[in-house]
This record gives sequence, C-alpha cells and structure tokens, in this order.
Amino acid sequence: MNLSSPLLLATETVTDETYAKAVITALLLTAGMIFVLSTLLGELCSRLNLPTVLGDLTTGILLGGSLLGVFVLTDGSEGINTTLLRVIGWLTNAPPETVVNAYRFQMRDFFSNSASIGLLSLLFVTGIESDLKELIKVGSQAATVALTGVLLPLMGGTIALVYGFHVPIIPAIFAGAALTATSIGITAKVLQEMGKLQSKEGQIILGAAILDDILGIVILALALSLIETGSIELTAIIVLVVKAAAFILLAFILNRYFCPLFSSRIESFNNPAALMLFALAFLNLLALVAIGLGLEALLGAFAAGLVLGGTRQKERLLQLIQPFVFVYTTVFFVTIGASVNLDVLNPLDPKNWSGLVIAAGLIAIAITGKIAAGFTVFGNGAINGNGAINRLAVGTGMIPRGEVGLVFAGLGASTGALSDSLDAAIIIMVVITTVVAPLLLRWVFPSEPETSSSGAAKPI
Amino acid sequence: MNLSSPLLLATETVTDETYAKAVITALLLTAGMIFVLSTLLGELCSRLNLPTVLGDLTTGILLGGSLLGVFVLTDGSEGINTTLLRVIGWLTNAPPETVVNAYRFQMRDFFSNSASIGLLSLLFVTGIESDLKELIKVGSQAATVALTGVLLPLMGGTIALVYGFHVPIIPAIFAGAALTATSIGITAKVLQEMGKLQSKEGQIILGAAILDDILGIVILALALSLIETGSIELTAIIVLVVKAAAFILLAFILNRYFCPLFSSRIESFNNPAALMLFALAFLNLLALVAIGLGLEALLGAFAAGLVLGGTRQKERLLQLIQPFVFVYTTVFFVTIGASVNLDVLNPLDPKNWSGLVIAAGLIAIAITGKIAAGFTVFGNGAINGNGAINRLAVGTGMIPRGEVGLVFAGLGASTGALSDSLDAAIIIMVVITTVVAPLLLRWVFPSEPETSSSGAAKPI
Repeated sequence: MNLSSPLLLATETVTDETYAKAVITALLLTAGMIFVLSTLLGELCSRLNLPTVLGDLTTGILLGGSLLGVFVLTDGSEGINTTLLRVIGWLTNAPPETVVNAYRFQMRDFFSNSASIGLLSLLFVTGIESDLKELIKVGSQAATVALTGVLLPLMGGTIALVYGFHVPIIPAIFAGAALTATSIGITAKVLQEMGKLQSKEGQIILGAAILDDILGIVILALALSLIETGSIELTAIIVLVVKAAAFILLAFILNRYFCPLFSSRIESFNNPAALMLFALAFLNLLALVAIGLGLEALLGAFAAGLVLGGTRQKERLLQLIQPFVFVYTTVFFVTIGASVNLDVLNPLDPKNWSGLVIAAGLIAIAITGKIAAGFTVFGNGAINGNGAINRLAVGTGMIPRGEVGLVFAGLGASTGALSDSLDAAIIIMVVITTVVAPLLLRWVFPSEPETSSSGAAKPI
Repeated sequence: MNLSSPLLLATETVTDETYAKAVITALLLTAGMIFVLSTLLGELCSRLNLPTVLGDLTTGILLGGSLLGVFVLTDGSEGINTTLLRVIGWLTNAPPETVVNAYRFQMRDFFSNSASIGLLSLLFVTGIESDLKELIKVGSQAATVALTGVLLPLMGGTIALVYGFHVPIIPAIFAGAALTATSIGITAKVLQEMGKLQSKEGQIILGAAILDDILGIVILALALSLIETGSIELTAIIVLVVKAAAFILLAFILNRYFCPLFSSRIESFNNPAALMLFALAFLNLLALVAIGLGLEALLGAFAAGLVLGGTRQKERLLQLIQPFVFVYTTVFFVTIGASVNLDVLNPLDPKNWSGLVIAAGLIAIAITGKIAAGFTVFGNGAINGNGAINRLAVGTGMIPRGEVGLVFAGLGASTGALSDSLDAAIIIMVVITTVVAPLLLRWVFPSEPETSSSGAAKPI
C-alpha cells in the first residue's frame, strides 16, 4: 500500500472496507432480529403446546416483505424497510446504494445458502434420530398405516388439484406430495402428556411417522427431480424411484457394516473437532453421491444421518449438530415464512377465492387421508390385552404435517414450481393440521384415569 | 406456472435449478475437502504437541491458489483446479461458465462471510473464557508482564519496519500490532504436561495471556480503524482508545450487573433454542454498538463474550458455541492459509529476499520482546516458598502468537493493508514462534522431579 496518494486510498480501500462493514452490519441486524423474534414467538408456541416451528414461520411472515420488510427475499429494492436501510447507513456511514447492495447480498445469497445448510442439518438430524432397529420392531402394522397414509393424500391431492382446480400436473404432484409427510414431534408430545406414548396406538403412530419421514423425503426428492427435468415420463420416474430406493438401501447397509469402523476410527483421534468435521464430510460425500445420481442433496444428508445414527457417537453427534439446527433451521423456516405472499390470503379479494378454496380442499384431504390410513390397522391389538385398537386415534395422530410439510412449501417456492397461491395453500394446510391435531387427538383418544400400557392390569 | 410452454420452462427454471445445484455442489465439495484435510493435519499437529490451528493453516496453504487450487479466493478464474471444476460440472450437468460462477460465489462471497462468522465466534469464545474474577486475582505482576509484552513488540516492530525496511507507517503499525498477541493454548498445555501450570510462573503467564488477549484485540480494533480512516492523527487515535476502553469497561459493568438478570430470565424459557439464540442476538447487538461507535464488530463479539462469561449458563453456552468454532473457525484459519502467496516465500528468487529478511526481523523482535517482558516481574516470588521466579520462563511462555497473530494476518490481507510479503512475514512469524516456544520452554524451565506448587514442602 502506498500512502503517497491519500485520495487513491480513500476511493479504493475505504469503499471496500465500507462495503464489507455494511455487509456484516446487515447480517448482524437482520439475524439479530430473527433470533430475538423467533425465540419469543417459539416460546409462546411452546406454552400453547404448539411446535416452536410455528414461531419461526410467524417470524418470517412478520419480518417478510408483506409486513415489516426486514427480511425481503425477492429481487429489487421495493418492499425493504427504509428505516432498516437507514440504520445500516447510519451505523456504517455507507452511501445508500452500498447499503442496498450489502443488504441484497445477505438476503438473496447468504441467507438462501444458509437456509440450504439449515435444511441439510434438519434432514441429517432426522436421519440420525430415525432409529432403524426400532422401526423393524414396530413392524407391519406401522408400515401399512404409513404406506396408505402417504398414498391416499398424494393421490387424492394430485387428482383433486388437476381435475378439480385445473392445476398443471407437476405442481399438482408437488402439492400432493406435500400432503404425505407426518410430523411426529407434536403428536409424540401430546401422547406423552396423556400418558399414551407406550400404548399400542402410540407405538403404531411413532413407527408409521418414522417410515413416513423416509417415504416423504424420498417423494420430495422425486418431486424435485420432476421439476428439474420438467417431464413426467413413466420410465424416468421408475429410474428415479429405483435410484432413490438403492440409495436408501445403501444407507441401511452402511448403517450395519460401516458404523463400527467409523466409531472405532474416530475414537482414536485426539482432535476434539474430528467427530464433527468427519461427520459433516460424510454428509457432504453422500450428498454429492446423491447429486451425481440425479437425486437431491437433501436425500444424501438424510441417508448420512441414517448411517451415522448407528454409531456409538450418536448422542454426541446430536449434541454437536443441535446448535446448527437451532440457528440454521430457524433461518430455513423463517425464510419459508418470509416467502409467503400475504396478499393471496386476503379473503376480501375475489381473485384469491380459488386459492383459498384450494387451501380448504388440501386441508380436507390432508385430514381425511390420514384418518382413513388409521383404519387400515389390522387385528384388534389384543396382544397387549388393552381391548380394541382406537383406529381413529392412530389416524388423528398422523395428521400434523409440521416441518416436512413446510420443507415442501419452501422448496416449492424457491424452485418456482408452485404458484404463490398454491404455496400459500400448502403453508395454511401445514399450520392448520399442526394446530388442530392435538385438539382432535385429545377428543378422539380420551385419557382414562391410570391408563396403563405393556399389559399391566387395569385398576378397575 | 404454465406448462404449455415447455421450452420457456427449460430455459428459465432448469437453468436456475442447475445454478442452485452447482452452488450447493461447490460448497459440499470444497467444504468436505477442508473438513477432511484440516482434521487429519490437525490430528498430526496434536500428536506433535503443536496447536491444531497449524493444521488448519497448512490445509489452507495446500488447498489454496499457490498449490492445489481447490480454495482460490482471488478474483478471476486462473489458478482454480480444473479437475475440481470438471467434477462439479460432471455431477450437476452444468455448463462450464455456470460452474465457475457457482464456485466463485462460494469462494468470494460465502466463505468470506463464513470466515467473518468464524472470527466472531472465536472472539466470543475467547471473551467467555477470559475469567474476569481470576484476572483480578493474578494482579499486578501479570499486568506488568502483559503491558510490557504488548508495548515492546509493538513499538520495536513498528520502528524496525519503518526505519529499517521503509514500510509505510500504517502497515508497519499493523504488523507491529500483530506481534503483541499471546496465544495461551500451547503454553498452557506444555506447562500442564510439565506439572508447572500451578507454579508462580505458570500463574503469571496465564494471567498475562488473558490480559494480552484483551489488549491485543483492542489494538487490532484500533489498527483496523487506522486502515479504514487512512490517517494516524493523534486526536483520532486518542478518541478511538477512549471509545474502546469505555466499551470494554461497559462489558465489565454488564458482566457484574446484567448477568444475573440474563441468567434468571433465560431459565424461565421452555424453548431449548432460547439460550443459543439470545446469546447470539446479544453478540450481534454489541457488535452493532461497536460498529456504531466506529470500532470493530469483533470487539463487540469479544465484549459480548466477556459479559456472558459471567452467567450461570457459561458452560452450556461454550458447549453450544463449540460446534460453530469447530466449523467456522476452521474455515477462518483455512482462509488465512489459502491467502498466503507462496511465491513470496521462495528464497531462490532475489526479489523475495527483503520480505524474508523482514520475516526474520519480526521473529527476532517477537521473541526478544516477550522475553524482555518476562524480566519485568518484580519481587522474587518467595510468597510461595519456591525460591526466585524464573523470569526467563515467564517470557518464554509468552512467545507463541497462535490464533490472534493469525487473525491480524488474515484481516491485514483481506483489507489490503498489508503487502503480500508483509502478510507472509507475519504468518511465518506466527508459525515459528508457536512451534519453537514449547521447545524453548522445556529447555529454560526444566522439570524438577515432583515440583510442587502452593507452598507444599519439596521432597529434597
């Protein structure tokens, strides 16, 4: 650096520095607001016995372009909160255009990349927590419920959208696929509070939900591939299904044979960062293999989780990934909320009516599809000596769509596959199913005093 | 979405999707290589009793533009490993220019932002671990060593560079400031292995190193402000010093009065993410205040750590931040390694000689400055009944520069304040001081059999 030309210095170095400062300021300010608001709203949800993910979603809707304009993901500078831009300019002494460029970089580039990291972290953790051994125990009843609970809403949703609402076939399949997932978190919590987690119904719900995760993520990967190729040739779909099945099978095999090797190798490291970094490198590797096979990176992340869930370091790994989930998955769900175009939800505007009717239709299919799946449970559950199985309770427990449903909505919006109104309809469906399921479940599955599981004698 | 125009779909959606896929593929591939290589080289360092940060640095040098070309931070496409680009293209079916754009985005934008996050995480953790209560106990002897150990290398380095090597004043001050830091990790480990961590010398070294961190980070913030304003007016420097001192004082006050409130409020949250997200929001807030005061974001992150180190959740917070440090601080140090221009180190090229002589000069000042500081310890340490203090050992223990020295090198390179050769000279200085200190320390501070601290009787 040559100080003999202070003017050159002022235009060159200072501007770069000012831009860098505006970039970090935009990040600190927007991320800080996201963290505070999502924690407070998540806490509110938690006290209302709702999943905290709804708090993240609401944070995104509040901060997004439709309302406060703090977290504006679309191109252009309209809709950005001018006070926010002025604060960044005031803190950094940067000129307005530098501020807008720095803000745009954080929103469009950095946060979208961070949201991808959030999605991969979420699916990695989902994979780690999907205990394959437990799954095999729960067996065929859960498998029946899971399969019908995936197929009925998928087919019902797609057919209704194509023939009832004249939605093109690919977005219709994508929206139908969004109806397949089951979010187990909320149901598990309600069942636990009711003391029914160990009941036959509870066990079937849990097993079916784990299977639903696997099926849902495979279907998501397939649906995204459909969007990318833009065709729905039957042979192409069959090839994809075979590849995805082979990929998940590979994960099952690695879970069995690779985990002991990984566990013992990793224990020989002094470096405390080794477990974290190797696990992430393994995630990256399987995600790259998935991409190379024409599948999705998220399927690789999920498979990596399925594999490493079998290691002795499973619990430590979950601890290490947890902070990433706290931060990045929050960013991911906030991003989904921020992408909601609230205008399409205004019921006073006649051009929104068809979208709102679609949302109502999706909700009806989402609820009836899972309840119908509950009635496919065979036998009467007398194994446990608890009398007939409450099939209605099994179906009701599968209703909440939660995170995985939102993943569909988020990726549907970011790939441009879904129209604004169809995207909003999916999000409404996810929110409604997630909120009503606990209420319905308490109603159809009344707590008996001292209900006992595992065959212990009842007190009257 | 309108499917009636498949061609439009193919050019619009598919290209966006392909770019998005190339972006995530470039991230997965480069990050995966960084994680694997840095873990292996870190393990090697750990077994050689060297700090793992040297493994990260070497990873950056190996993967950087001078050698493998996997992690190329400069603009333009020359120097990028063509095999890497071909693999990304092969995995994603993306055309070459899309691949280069995606790679460039990850390198120039995403990794540099991630490196900033790594730096903020590192300083946040450094702040949390700087136990203010312990510091007050160690008292005036440590303070004397710390102050002289900062001032001697700073002044010696600046004067030598300006008058001996005709370096302009601002880069000279910046390089001089890079000589001030003490990395305690490596010395603490060596002292522990020698059973001397609790000795009088060990306690003075630890206390002085904590103070050195605070002084070094304040000096770094001041040096960066000098670069930004491009002037070295005395009044401006005094204003900055006063602001920085007031800011650190604020952290001390908040540590005392705000922490109990934070601790009890945070305990009332059900939301498990609350602690992490509020702590990060607090970090962001103090970083924004620092920026608003014309100081640096990193000073805010450090101050936030100093404050939250006083909460009851200190240990849990360190656990939660640890995975971020594992990942992002690795990225930060790898970035520093990758920014090293190896060409300037070739001793066969006569135009590198002045740079190499500067490096040798910096190393000499770095070592003698800290050793001289050791001799400022007053008294003879007879308080513990251990006889005279080994002042040479105190100074030697302060020699390794480690992380904080590298932070100077990294920020010096990214702001363009340092020439390639001065930047390389700082990195060589950090590596040499960090590697030789443990060897020197074992030599000047011989292990006596059964050396005992805290006044217990010696066995002979």
